[in-house]
This record gives sequence, C-alpha cells and structure tokens, in this order.
Amino acid sequence: MNDPLSRIRIVLSRTSHPGNIGAAARAMKTMGLSRLYLVSPRHLPEEQATAMASGADDVLAAARVVETLEDALQGTVLAVAMTARRRDLSAPIAWVREAVPEALESAGQGDIAFVFGNETAGLSNQETDLCQRLAMIPANSDYSSLNLAAAVQVACYELRLASLEIGAPPAVHEAGSPASHEEVEGLIGHIEAAAIKSGFLDPAQPKRLIPRVRRLFARAQPEKEEVAILRGMLSALMDTRYWPK
Amino acid sequence: MNDPLSRIRIVLSRTSHPGNIGAAARAMKTMGLSRLYLVSPRHLPEEQATAMASGADDVLAAARVVETLEDALQGTVLAVAMTARRRDLSAPIAWVREAVPEALESAGQGDIAFVFGNETAGLSNQETDLCQRLAMIPANSDYSSLNLAAAVQVACYELRLASLEIGAPPAVHEAGSPASHEEVEGLIGHIEAAAIKSGFLDPAQPKRLIPRVRRLFARAQPEKEEVAILRGMLSALMDTRYWPK
Repeated sequence: MNDPLSRIRIVLSRTSHPGNIGAAARAMKTMGLSRLYLVSPRHLPEEQATAMASGADDVLAAARVVETLEDALQGTVLAVAMTARRRDLSAPIAWVREAVPEALESAGQGDIAFVFGNETAGLSNQETDLCQRLAMIPANSDYSSLNLAAAVQVACYELRLASLEIGAPPAVHEAGSPASHEEVEGLIGHIEAAAIKSGFLDPAQPKRLIPRVRRLFARAQPEKEEVAILRGMLSALMDTRYWPK
Repeated sequence: MNDPLSRIRIVLSRTSHPGNIGAAARAMKTMGLSRLYLVSPRHLPEEQATAMASGADDVLAAARVVETLEDALQGTVLAVAMTARRRDLSAPIAWVREAVPEALESAGQGDIAFVFGNETAGLSNQETDLCQRLAMIPANSDYSSLNLAAAVQVACYELRLASLEIGAPPAVHEAGSPASHEEVEGLIGHIEAAAIKSGFLDPAQPKRLIPRVRRLFARAQPEKEEVAILRGMLSALMDTRYWPK
C-alpha cells in the first residue's frame, strides 16, 4: 500500500443537494482523496454538482452510485460514521482527530469508509449500526450544523495530515542568513551612536534605552541583510552631507 | 477575556461570491466564532449569502464591511495571512495547525486576524505584507484549491480545537503591551520617511527595502514602548535642530 488515502472511501448517504456532492468532491480532491460513494442521492450528480466540483469533476465522474449503505461498505475493513450528536447504545465515539489515526492504521488491511448522512437528518440508527466507529467534529453546542461538504473537508483534512505525518513545515520561506552576534552588536552600537548624536540619548543619563533596543533585536533575530539595511540608513541619517537638498 | 475565540476576526478580502461569504459565516458559527470582516466584497451580502449562511445570519448581519485590509486590521496585535502557495520574501510560514496555538496565545493581548484572499487570486503581496504570519493548509499539490468557505472551516476548526485545549489564556506575562497594527505601521512609515529624507531610499526606486524592514518588525512583534523609543530617535535624527552642538 503506497498511499493510505487511496484506501479511504468517502460515503455520502441520501444526500439531498447535488451542489453538496460537488463541493464534497472538491474537498476530497484538495486533500488527495478520490474515492466517492453515493448512497441513493436524491438527485444524481448533475450540472450544479459539476459547478461546485470546480475542477474535481474527475472525482465526481468516478463516483460509485449505490442503493444502500451496505453496498457502499462492501469490502471495507472499518467504517466510521460521522455524527453531529452523541447517540445511545452505539459504537464507541471519538473526536475525528482521534478516530483518524486508528482508521489509517487499518488501511493496511483493506478499505476504510467515512460515512456522512443526509444534510437534514444525518445518519439513521440503522446506518450507524453498520459502522464500527462513531466520530464527531467538535462544534459549537448552540449551532453544530456543519455544511455537509464542510464536514467532509474537515475529515479529509485530518486524514491528509495523519497520512503525511506532517513532518517539517514548509520551511521554504527562504530566510536569509541570520546575523552573527557581532553583527547584531554592531547594529546596537550604531543605534546608540545615532541616539547620542541626535540628542535623543544623553550618555550621562542613559536610562534603560539601549537595553530595550537590545531586547527588541534579540526577539527579532535579524538577518545579515536587515542589519546592513538599518546600518546603511543610520549612516545616511547621521551624516547630513548625504541628505538630498 | 473569557473566550479566546471572541478575540478572533475572520477577514475575507475582495470576495467575489456572496454565497461564499454566507458559507464562511456558517463555518465560523459552527466553530464558535462570530467576528466577520469583509474587505471590499464584490457584492454586499445579500440573498444568496443569507441562504448559504443557513442559521448563521446573525454572524452575517454583524459583519463589518470595510474598504481596505488596513481598516480590517485596525486594533489587531497579530494578523495571519492564509495562503495556498509558498511566497518569497515574506513573513514566516507555518502549517495552520502550528500557527493557531501561537495566535491564540497572542489573543490574551488583543484581537487576532485570520485573513483570506479572493477566490481566484488569493491575497496580493501588498496584503500579505500587512500580516505578521503566513499559514497554509496542507493540500494536494496537484489540486490545492480549497473553496473559500472550506478554508475558513478548516482554520476555524483548528482555532476551536486549540482554544478548547488552551482553556483560559495565560495570564499576562511580564512583557510590555504589544504595539497595535497601527502603531507598527506608524513606525514603518516613519522609517520610510527617514530613509527618504536621508537619501538612503530613492522613492523613485524603492526596491524591496521597506518590505524587508516590515518583515523584520513582523518577526519582532514590538511592544508599544519600543515603538515609541525608535520613533523618538528617528524624529531626533531627522531634525538637526535637536542635535547637540
């Protein structure tokens, strides 16, 4: 198994609005998932779904349309029911963040399904009974109604993160080389000289001015080029011969 | 401050589709966020937005509509630009999961903004330059285009999870009060004026000088008193009448 995400089925049961199917397909594709199952959608994917899919039409076109949830779960080794509420007498419930790593581990054994119910009614008890796990997205208890595609986005986001083992952040913000200790000290000395020359700092009564500046640059961890810019500007400011007439 | 989420502004810049504004409002409310800022939306929220808000009309109705991103950032202590791509020469970049806890810690000091760009073009460089952090949602490199409301959903989801973990924000630590967005902008404007006055910066050929300075101070997150020190010194340097003979 190369990519565990290729073992994940996103199952939408009895979806009412084709636009939500399209938006769910898009959400899946952005996170690298592609296997969409539609259980008795009220309308088959059509124009509105394609519009909302917005470039994920391939996911939509490859969707499997089936009659019952049991059909969609054929061949899976684990099914996770996404639910917006706690339920009595059902499978163990977990936050989606906790449910996902376990699910991905099972992906070594076979297909895993994440199952989403109808926009209004959610999943029926018969449907959740077919699933071995229940997962919730932690939501505002006064208003817990995520849009269907938004819930798919969150679940797929967690799946992607868990499958990547994130690792290093995109460190490509080509930071310049950090200035050395001496370079930072040179800058602070330069600032002190400028403060004295301008009359802003009285060397007989220095107060805590330079320590404050030092603390600021300690936090900033300036780069070499930034030190050069600031020192260039200070030199220009301290010598009025450079000033444009 | 009881709930750190009450310090979070979701800022949508130059949004094209009112439906996305409504869907973003819904995404926010499901995660317990309520403060929506709209920067020059192509259409003001209207029927389609309300339909997509679906019960989050209160968030939509309370949205602040402003002209520029700077208006939306007035009074914030940290702004996080959500971006779908790596960028050169800009603020530090992190995955949104990593950026959120730091942002929430700053919420003890004042408002925090998460900024989302236009559906097609994203954020401009001028816009990201106004933000102190960049954050990305890890996406499929072949198809990284999350729907705007889906991106808002993921960011708000991370904010909710992190706020639940954090619980009460840390008591104010011994650091001074952070400078506001306007105060840092005032400092950068002052540096620019000094650089021009001294002949160090040619306004006809500004190059990337001021963006570099901006990035330095974005990293440093200066305190109010530090801004006051630097501006006092710049004023003294720029007016030779203050200079000791």
